Amino acid sequence: MSHTPPRVLAFDVFGTVADWHTSVAQDIAQRIPGIDGAAFARDWRAGYKPAMARVASGELGWTRIDDLHRMILNDLLPRYDLADMPEAERRDLNRVWHRLAVWPDVARGLARLRSRFICTTLSNGNIGLLTKQARHAGIQWDCVLSAEVFGKYKPDPATYLGVADIFDVPAHQVMMVAAHQSDLDSAAALGLQTAYIERVNEFGADQPKDVSGNQANSFHAVGFNDLADQLGCTR
Amino acid sequence: MSHTPPRVLAFDVFGTVADWHTSVAQDIAQRIPGIDGAAFARDWRAGYKPAMARVASGELGWTRIDDLHRMILNDLLPRYDLADMPEAERRDLNRVWHRLAVWPDVARGLARLRSRFICTTLSNGNIGLLTKQARHAGIQWDCVLSAEVFGKYKPDPATYLGVADIFDVPAHQVMMVAAHQSDLDSAAALGLQTAYIERVNEFGADQPKDVSGNQANSFHAVGFNDLADQLGCTR
Repeated sequence: MSHTPPRVLAFDVFGTVADWHTSVAQDIAQRIPGIDGAAFARDWRAGYKPAMARVASGELGWTRIDDLHRMILNDLLPRYDLADMPEAERRDLNRVWHRLAVWPDVARGLARLRSRFICTTLSNGNIGLLTKQARHAGIQWDCVLSAEVFGKYKPDPATYLGVADIFDVPAHQVMMVAAHQSDLDSAAALGLQTAYIERVNEFGADQPKDVSGNQANSFHAVGFNDLADQLGCTR
Repeated sequence: MSHTPPRVLAFDVFGTVADWHTSVAQDIAQRIPGIDGAAFARDWRAGYKPAMARVASGELGWTRIDDLHRMILNDLLPRYDLADMPEAERRDLNRVWHRLAVWPDVARGLARLRSRFICTTLSNGNIGLLTKQARHAGIQWDCVLSAEVFGKYKPDPATYLGVADIFDVPAHQVMMVAAHQSDLDSAAALGLQTAYIERVNEFGADQPKDVSGNQANSFHAVGFNDLADQLGCTR
């Protein structure tokens, strides 16, 4: 497959940039001695797609991820015998998604990629969350785009095509960068280029995930520095 | 007046961050020997508010600043005997707004302000323009917010209040930073804090503007480093 170089890289964030599993598991484990933090993190995250589906179906009006995270958390706490967690602590715990660490290759790899390409988020996370998470992790985007800008959650075409529209380029000059093949498949179906990033420990080191990706992706990289190498960015 | 510190600084861009006059005047002067670049830049900019007013009134549907700039340019060129400028050059000239230099205090002052506050644009410029301009000038935002996100141009309240909403803070925890008193007045009426920035040469050194601002502003600064000093940012 030959590619004209993209002009814009659009990054998925949860899992691709940010190691949500480690950050959430550690946060809850520090609060609640003896809790299975890894399981709690996975259970919280597991509520994410069903919650967005309720928005996409119209059952819920437009609802930010911050608020969806909180709804999922409220349902989850009783299952961990934490139904009595006070409101202030729930609120602080919910903001753990603003404090996610990034994978070790991200800070340098992203800086290298930004030297050649416009690098924007394209996440279902809300703008405030994404902005605060980047500040917390010490990383830098050219632009923070979110489902919130388009009023639709990925995989709605309005999100992928919205990036091309905002930067006034054809879809094939945008490359979606994600650790999730389904996200890339949705982007590719609309003509975007795709880069698969291996995040074998996205769900924790005890539950390694399949990172074979799809051979049809424009690029396949073990991390952001590998992607930067493949795209010819200076070291 | 005593102030609780803001959490978010929202920056006007054209004139406040970017020295549009110098950049536009130089660009056209390099293309067209003998043209009065300073006047051309001012005439182009003078079409900006009337063009946005056509959008606000509903006469035009939502139209990006890139496209409004181009409409104004098309009207302007014949007045400078440049009606025969070819399409490709018009397109490139129109993108001068993506290549605006910033005032000398901006790069360092903004970095200092970002060390304590979330710093976002709040400009009528479109997201693509603002993103490319920041890359061109080598400056860094936490987030690029634009009228384009809200579907309304400043001074529509949806823009100012939209920043507070996105960052989930009350209006008084957002501070509008601008070199234009009218922008600050609109923000203050909605409860935002305000910082007036002196840009005496916004319209060119030959046409210094009144930079007295209004005493009711929360802050009044000669530039971004002065504002950073007043806000207690480390040097």
